[in-house]
Formats: sequence, C-alpha cells, structure tokens
Amino acid sequence: MNVEALVFDVFGTVVDWRSSVIAACEATGLAGDWGVLADEWRRDGYLRPIVATVRGEAPWRPVEELMRDHLDVLAPRYGLDGVDLDELARVWRRLDPWPDAVAGLTRLKERFTIAPLSNGGFAQLTAMARHAGLPWDCIISTDLFRSYKPDPACYLGALELLDLPAERVMLVAAHPGDLRAAQACGLRAAYVPRPREWGPAAPAPEAPDPAFDVVAEDFEDLAAQLDA
Amino acid sequence: MNVEALVFDVFGTVVDWRSSVIAACEATGLAGDWGVLADEWRRDGYLRPIVATVRGEAPWRPVEELMRDHLDVLAPRYGLDGVDLDELARVWRRLDPWPDAVAGLTRLKERFTIAPLSNGGFAQLTAMARHAGLPWDCIISTDLFRSYKPDPACYLGALELLDLPAERVMLVAAHPGDLRAAQACGLRAAYVPRPREWGPAAPAPEAPDPAFDVVAEDFEDLAAQLDA
Repeated sequence: MNVEALVFDVFGTVVDWRSSVIAACEATGLAGDWGVLADEWRRDGYLRPIVATVRGEAPWRPVEELMRDHLDVLAPRYGLDGVDLDELARVWRRLDPWPDAVAGLTRLKERFTIAPLSNGGFAQLTAMARHAGLPWDCIISTDLFRSYKPDPACYLGALELLDLPAERVMLVAAHPGDLRAAQACGLRAAYVPRPREWGPAAPAPEAPDPAFDVVAEDFEDLAAQLDA
Repeated sequence: MNVEALVFDVFGTVVDWRSSVIAACEATGLAGDWGVLADEWRRDGYLRPIVATVRGEAPWRPVEELMRDHLDVLAPRYGLDGVDLDELARVWRRLDPWPDAVAGLTRLKERFTIAPLSNGGFAQLTAMARHAGLPWDCIISTDLFRSYKPDPACYLGALELLDLPAERVMLVAAHPGDLRAAQACGLRAAYVPRPREWGPAAPAPEAPDPAFDVVAEDFEDLAAQLDA
C-alpha cells in the first residue's frame, strides 16, 4: 500500500460522544436518564436526518442546526427545565477523545497527513480539535460539499482537497457502512471497532468485512500496523 | 476587542517564499539569477493572474496550475535545462517560515483559533504546514470559494466556516491591500510588515494605515500585543 493520507470518521471513531453528552447533562445538576437521551439525540437528531438528506428526501442543512432543533423535542420529555439549550447543544463541539486517540493520531501524523472526514461541521470539528487536542493537519467536513457521508461526493471531495488519488487515501472508521462507501470510491479502509460507542450495554460491533484493508483494536494498534 | 480567531495571509506574511524558491533553484546545481526568477514567478505567474481572476477577466483556475504554467515560460529564459519542472514547482508546498513564525503562531494558538486565509491551494497549504511546522487549527484556502483574495467572497466565506461574526476575526497580513479588503468586510486587521519579502534590495513596505487595529514587528510582537 502506498497510502499518504488518513481521513477519519470522528463521532464514535475518534471521540466518545456518548460519555461526553452524559457528562454535560449531569453538569446541569438535574437528574435524568442521560444515556437514553444521548442515544436518542444521536439517532433521531443526527443519523435519521442525515440519511434522509443523502436519500434526497430532505434539503441539506448544517448538522448543528439539525441537532439543535432536535434538542427542542427532547428537552420537555427529559425534564431539561431551565437549561440553556443553546449552550447544551454546543457539547458536540467539546467531545472527549477515546483514551488512545491523541497518542495514536500523534504517532500516525509523523508518517501520514491526517484529517477528519466527518459529518460534523467545519467550525464544530475545529473547536473539537482544540478542545480534545486532536493534531489534525487540516479539517475536512462534509459541509464543504453541502452533503453528508455516505454520499460519494464527500469521499471524492476529500480526494480533490488532498490532491491525491483514491488508492493513496485510507478512511479510518468504526462504522462498516462508512468504510464500504469509501471503498466504493476507491479509498482504502481501516476498521477500528469501538464496542462502547453506544454504551456498556450495546450489542457487539459488526464483524469486519474481509474486504477491509486493516482491522485495528485502537489507534495505537493502527499506527503499529501501518509502521507509523 | 473581542477577537476569537486570527486568519493569516501566508505567502510573504508567514513564509519567506523568495529565499525558499532561490534555494530550490540553487539545489538544481545550475547557475542563474534566481532572485530575479523568484520575483518574476511570483509577480507574473501568481499576482497578475490572480488580479485578472478577481476582476472577472479570466476564469478561476487552481493556483498551482497557474504557477506551474508560468514556469514553462520562465524555464527557457532562465536556462533551467534538464530540470524536472513539476518537481521544482512543488517548492511552493515546501516554503520555509520566517524565523519568528512558528514560535509566534504556537503562542497565539493558546488564545486564538488560528488558520491561514490564503490564495494558496488547500493541499498546498496542508503540505506547507507539515513542512514548516505551522500549527494551524484548520486550513482555509480561497479555492474553497473558487475565488481569490481580495474578492469579498473569500473573507465572508472564512467567517461562515469559522461560524463567527466579522468583528471577532482578525486578518494578519504583510499586505495593506489585503487588510483593507478584510476591513471592508468587517474583519479586524493586524499589519505585520515583512521588509525582506521581495529581497534585501526591495523598497520599504507601505506605511501602516491608521485604520489598522494592530501594527506589529513580527508574530512574537503580535502575540505580546494581543496578550497571548
């Protein structure tokens, strides 16, 4: 393999959105079932409208607007009385990394250009990198393409920005569907399952597809396998 | 002032393009008037077509294509016989920083989001940051807007990507025209003259406009003045 750049899915792959959202809700001082809220926010405020957008069933809108809107639906149901919802929604700019992420990225950056390729927004990912200490070389967000993964335009847009042919770019992700969409555009694929993305009680991650180029336990293992 | 992000002109402001191009020409082993070549490449291969593009006299094309094309004009006139011109043109991805740049940016990054806002290309600026150790939080290049500074679309596009109002963003540049165009869009302006940008024999830089918010000797001085 002649890979020059690694692009990363972020939510779930690099950062632990669930624990970070739970912690932000706990910091309000209210009691609530914050793990369930976090899962629902992610699923219905993010994944569902993203899928609808990529299918052409809804016009593109910035991801932070989608997620902020859904918090208005969640707030009364979860008893978020008196909470500054604009401020709470900005927790998605302050997500904490998985324990191996910063050390692994730092090591990978020695050998490869590293960038997110995320459905997060450009400003959101920039703020998150500052919060979490993610040493990206540049930020690639799908709002640059006014679309969302897994629309092929996102993977192809990243290649154009990096000025690299597809076979020299590898997507790193905890989500097989994202990896398969990248491979369909010619990119390489590294699968890093994150069994705790949806919490301790979540079902086990999908088994690796034999077509994936690399399967790694975490970013340190990925760096070792890529000789970084 | 309530500035949250600093965006930087790059060529001449952060990096010393002239010395870097001269060094790359010297590395060919040929003898030549490389300072004159560097100045002409910058002026006729870059500044002139950029101005024509912003005036609407020429369609937008990627900056690296413009500069590579002009090297075909320069090569026979400057005796670049047998030189790999594609490789030589990539010197613009490997420009060296001014001596104060990395330390100043590192200090400014503690307090502010820092990014280029440059007519360089996205891949070019990403590669340059890796070469020169420029610790950007994100890369903002005008090819994201399919235009060039001083088109207002570039400054306004940067504000949208950063998700900040204009008065919270400051352009740092060695070029008064760039600063005035940014101010016309509501941004703050920091002037850092670089008297040696065009070499030791160049005329003195333009005097600071009294409308500029900050005038600094270099990036360390800028950090001190901005309490970073």
